Amino acid sequence: MTAAPLRDTSRLCIHTVTTKPWSLEEAAQAYSNAGVSGITVWRDALEGRDITASGQLLRDSGLEIISLCRGGFFPGAAKAEREDSLTDNRRIIEIAHDLEAPLIVLVCGAVPGQPLEQSRTQIRDGIEAILPDAEAAGVRLAIEPLHPMYADNRSAINTLGQANDMAEAIDSSSVGIAVDVYHLWWDPDLETEIARCGRHGNLLAYHICDWKTPTTDLLLDRGLMGEGCIPLRRIREWVEAAGFSGHHEVEIFSKSYWEGDQHEFLNNITEAYLQHS
Amino acid sequence: MTAAPLRDTSRLCIHTVTTKPWSLEEAAQAYSNAGVSGITVWRDALEGRDITASGQLLRDSGLEIISLCRGGFFPGAAKAEREDSLTDNRRIIEIAHDLEAPLIVLVCGAVPGQPLEQSRTQIRDGIEAILPDAEAAGVRLAIEPLHPMYADNRSAINTLGQANDMAEAIDSSSVGIAVDVYHLWWDPDLETEIARCGRHGNLLAYHICDWKTPTTDLLLDRGLMGEGCIPLRRIREWVEAAGFSGHHEVEIFSKSYWEGDQHEFLNNITEAYLQHS
Repeated sequence: MTAAPLRDTSRLCIHTVTTKPWSLEEAAQAYSNAGVSGITVWRDALEGRDITASGQLLRDSGLEIISLCRGGFFPGAAKAEREDSLTDNRRIIEIAHDLEAPLIVLVCGAVPGQPLEQSRTQIRDGIEAILPDAEAAGVRLAIEPLHPMYADNRSAINTLGQANDMAEAIDSSSVGIAVDVYHLWWDPDLETEIARCGRHGNLLAYHICDWKTPTTDLLLDRGLMGEGCIPLRRIREWVEAAGFSGHHEVEIFSKSYWEGDQHEFLNNITEAYLQHS
Repeated sequence: MTAAPLRDTSRLCIHTVTTKPWSLEEAAQAYSNAGVSGITVWRDALEGRDITASGQLLRDSGLEIISLCRGGFFPGAAKAEREDSLTDNRRIIEIAHDLEAPLIVLVCGAVPGQPLEQSRTQIRDGIEAILPDAEAAGVRLAIEPLHPMYADNRSAINTLGQANDMAEAIDSSSVGIAVDVYHLWWDPDLETEIARCGRHGNLLAYHICDWKTPTTDLLLDRGLMGEGCIPLRRIREWVEAAGFSGHHEVEIFSKSYWEGDQHEFLNNITEAYLQHS
């Protein structure tokens, strides 16, 4: 079973990092003109800006702010590092509050050579430590399981099953999960874990792009929807069956796309979104 | 718990691809001089050679032939492709027989865009089709689960759990599994799946190297043991607890190591093997 084709862009959200060369103004204007309805803001796009005014700018452009990327990176070999991370995450919660972004995506972190279980304990401790701040700010936190190729230094949470375990253990309505097809498409348990994620009310965000063959860079060679092997409509069917009705967030890190014309790229994104997602 | 340090190279095997610039003669001579006890032969090292004489050369150098790499790549969109793959795998079985290699490592294959379940069905069908040939030749087949970053075009079997499922379903004493730390180290179920693999008599081979941070290439940037984040002694403890007493096979694809002096590299391998594996 695969989901029915999408008919419009009313649930299309784009991550600012996808069109990284653009300023926040340029992105807001172009997304809005293209009929994109949501925006997820990466922190670098806010660098040196007034946060409240930036949020207003986006809303004035007719865009809904879907989430802020990204918090996390909780593990650290030394206690001081882990405390620095908490400070930074509390700052991110403030930013989300001022921006009026309802959700923060967490890239949870890992320390090369530190046992993954230990990193997971530190991740859980970190999330629980900032949870009162998130609740007070009215901001939710989404654990994003990352592809196993990032288990060395980016995240010790590498499957949706692990993210589900952690979200259920923390058991707070302010903590859920971001499902990104790039990280998870290969997982033989994906369908059942998506269903479980929805059942527990933890499916908070859905990120899309594609996996190219060959992929020439571990970080910066993501594909546009339809350019790769990810069964996007099939996964969307699972996500919808799990009760998700939020935005479809296009998050593409791509050196080659960043080097090209961003207006043309945006046009290709909306076309690819309707044709392949 | 971690395994006790290794004291000698009596269980050290090296894959010919690890020292790719060397001919089979050069590798045999150098491995033997370095006290390496086993060799796993990659098919390209046999190109244009008499197979039986090559096997004899290796044994005359005092090396035990551990396995032949590699068969597999069973899936194909068209039936003709899958039949070509069977023909090729039968040829590999003949080579293993003539070389007197007791084991063939299978990189099982995947077709970009074809559902992974379909590829898995084709993999199982392929293994079962060549099984009588393997049995007749006295050669065993080892399914090697590959890292999820290879799920697009190299293998639809990406966890040890999946490999265990398949080996148990095929249920033949001629089919087992090759555990490679590079592919599997991140898996939260690794300890239990290694135990299961041993319990079913399926743990046929153990491959080592390391995962570097950063890793700059998806294929050709593997690290020497100790250079990365893989908990090698911990995994060896699990493998030994599962009853494995075979060779530790060093399999490193590395553009940068291949560009350097291979004698120096071999020296570093034996040192790293004793210090970190």
